[in-house]
Amino acid sequence: MPVSAIAINCTLKASGEDESSTDAMIAVLSEAFGKHGVKIAETLRITDFNVLPGVTSDEGEGDDWPELRGKILDHDILIFAGPIWLGKISSVAKRVLERMDAFLSETDDKGRMPSAGKVAVAAIVGNEDGAHWSTSQLFQALNDTGWTIPANASCYWVGEAMGSVDFKDLDKTPDKVTETAEMLASNAAHLAGLLKAQTYPGVSG
Amino acid sequence: MPVSAIAINCTLKASGEDESSTDAMIAVLSEAFGKHGVKIAETLRITDFNVLPGVTSDEGEGDDWPELRGKILDHDILIFAGPIWLGKISSVAKRVLERMDAFLSETDDKGRMPSAGKVAVAAIVGNEDGAHWSTSQLFQALNDTGWTIPANASCYWVGEAMGSVDFKDLDKTPDKVTETAEMLASNAAHLAGLLKAQTYPGVSG
Amino acid sequence: MPVSAIAINCTLKASGEDESSTDAMIAVLSEAFGKHGVKIAETLRITDFNVLPGVTSDEGEGDDWPELRGKILDHDILIFAGPIWLGKISSVAKRVLERMDAFLSETDDKGRMPSAGKVAVAAIVGNEDGAHWSTSQLFQALNDTGWTIPANASCYWVGEAMGSVDFKDLDKTPDKVTETAEMLASNAAHLAGLLKAQTYPGVSG
Amino acid sequence: MPVSAIAINCTLKASGEDESSTDAMIAVLSEAFGKHGVKIAETLRITDFNVLPGVTSDEGEGDDWPELRGKILDHDILIFAGPIWLGKISSVAKRVLERMDAFLSETDDKGRMPSAGKVAVAAIVGNEDGAHWSTSQLFQALNDTGWTIPANASCYWVGEAMGSVDFKDLDKTPDKVTETAEMLASNAAHLAGLLKAQTYPGVSG
Repeated sequence: MPVSAIAINCTLKASGEDESSTDAMIAVLSEAFGKHGVKIAETLRITDFNVLPGVTSDEGEGDDWPELRGKILDHDILIFAGPIWLGKISSVAKRVLERMDAFLSETDDKGRMPSAGKVAVAAIVGNEDGAHWSTSQLFQALNDTGWTIPANASCYWVGEAMGSVDFKDLDKTPDKVTETAEMLASNAAHLAGLLKAQTYPGVSG
Repeated sequence: MPVSAIAINCTLKASGEDESSTDAMIAVLSEAFGKHGVKIAETLRITDFNVLPGVTSDEGEGDDWPELRGKILDHDILIFAGPIWLGKISSVAKRVLERMDAFLSETDDKGRMPSAGKVAVAAIVGNEDGAHWSTSQLFQALNDTGWTIPANASCYWVGEAMGSVDFKDLDKTPDKVTETAEMLASNAAHLAGLLKAQTYPGVSG
Repeated sequence: MPVSAIAINCTLKASGEDESSTDAMIAVLSEAFGKHGVKIAETLRITDFNVLPGVTSDEGEGDDWPELRGKILDHDILIFAGPIWLGKISSVAKRVLERMDAFLSETDDKGRMPSAGKVAVAAIVGNEDGAHWSTSQLFQALNDTGWTIPANASCYWVGEAMGSVDFKDLDKTPDKVTETAEMLASNAAHLAGLLKAQTYPGVSG
Repeated sequence: MPVSAIAINCTLKASGEDESSTDAMIAVLSEAFGKHGVKIAETLRITDFNVLPGVTSDEGEGDDWPELRGKILDHDILIFAGPIWLGKISSVAKRVLERMDAFLSETDDKGRMPSAGKVAVAAIVGNEDGAHWSTSQLFQALNDTGWTIPANASCYWVGEAMGSVDFKDLDKTPDKVTETAEMLASNAAHLAGLLKAQTYPGVSG
């Protein structure tokens, strides 16, 4: 069963400001997913939208989250991508997770959240240290909000301690990153396919 | 396809010292898994064994890890259970994760780790705060070492801030815990079944 | 030497929307600090301002951070207060930390950041689990950005696992919270006084 | 007032097995502290001792913690040093923190823990990512157990993502590490001196 993917880019910068290392990492994943017949339909740059603070699915006038939420839930695989700041995921990434907190009370009659049967992976870039902590934040929060995490679901790059080189400025994608991206894509595509064919049965009330 | 489970209890206490709240949580999960035809074959109390420090699969004389490693990998579902100390997983739990670090270099010809196609869930207890951080530590480290995390894969209990009541001493298991255990068991059993029937294809070298 | 304090409230809610549990915790600390002759000059509710995404001290038109930054640095003690969402600090709190990242490049000729000699403490509330992880996020990020952390610098309250009671709705502040607030205030006031009298000498270039 | 320091090395390896990158980082700090008249009296390699699991100050027969605890508390500054495994501090480091948990119930008549007025800093090495998360674990747990954290109290080195170069094998200590070590040492020496001259007053019962 064919599956589709969508990416979100949680950089602090708006489109057009600057090239994004996060986009460069999404491009690596896009190529890897392509080998498994999965197209990344779209990359949502979150800072291009107005995602209001809150923990519901619609925070009212001027809130762009309902539109983003709809797009994200239209696909089988979510590529949650973003940069590291102070060792952790960005405030923009945390904002998205907070809005998904609403999934906990949007369960169906089998107790399943809107994210049930969908797969999420992490794509993290930083000029230095913080990838594991960022991944841990994403995996725990995404799992709490109903997403499934395939094996080896984190692809990341950081430079040497206290460095300043960005992923987008590397001469060439390191082999380790490409290999990790390929395993991630293979695992995510396989698992999303299995779950699309047979989703979680849930629990009867 | 029937799946089987094993639990590890990462309390700091040896068997016989004291009743364990972690065992009480494993009992809740055992009942929930039972409803889905999954038996927890055994609970390994890690402090009853001598798990040497290191990051290989066999640290030599006196090391009990090779035996534990074998038992864990005999099953489809790992219930990684333990207490919270200072807001985080125990040193005993961290020791186990460090030994699984060896999986990263024990891949087959498709790049798959020994944990490929196996599912892991978290069971966390504390008299107070720390469940989410502990879960994040487990999910990130278990995923790095090749385990798959089903949706809503954490079942936990903690008391009010700075409290001292233990899970094993509660009059009754809180409904929220029972409900969470049931969803966790349903999801883990389903996902382990899917992956047992069709494991990850891996990546050709 | 008399010292002064300022609080920031990183709730997701704007003023007037709702009573804030974070404000209730700041009130407990205010009373404790008062016993040590320290007045909390002001509480800045961050969501009442427009703090733009970014990692500089001024992100241009419409950015309220320069005003907040000035107010925060006018005092000797920062009470960094906020709620827990998904086990972690809020996106609003992370945004503030990101803006303080600029301190790393705003050092004086002795290498000292604008926060040098100033003391920061954490005040965390949630209806459930996450205080230790939130504290760890704050302490690491605040320390990286030059703040000093006095002994026992975290005051928190969370309810039982997966609960829904808010701190503001408790009949009475738990004794443990009051005691913790008093030790925190005593330690912070003492350390801020010492550092105000004799700040860090820094390092000659 | 002259202050003294002690270091603990939380590597997974016993002395004599192998050179330790953690020792190499402690050597960098030793030189930096020397410039401020602070001698590191001793480095305790924790794996050379038998630190039993538990959360009291004496776990009975065969427990080496009472001896280590005494040595640590004989000094004004603790250099908590160790490697990163799976993005986090080692099981050996967590074991030490768990034993310090006992400080919470070993307060004097002013509510002060045995660590009151003492300063702790972090020294973290890894061949790759994890320094910020490790620092956050240490700062939160050390602060909970009564230690004071001076400004910029973390010195670390990690290599590029998924790399395998060790700190001990670098041709030369990176300038950024040396600079960070100097600021850390300057801040820790200054703050420990202030607190030694005038310790926290504590809180009257």
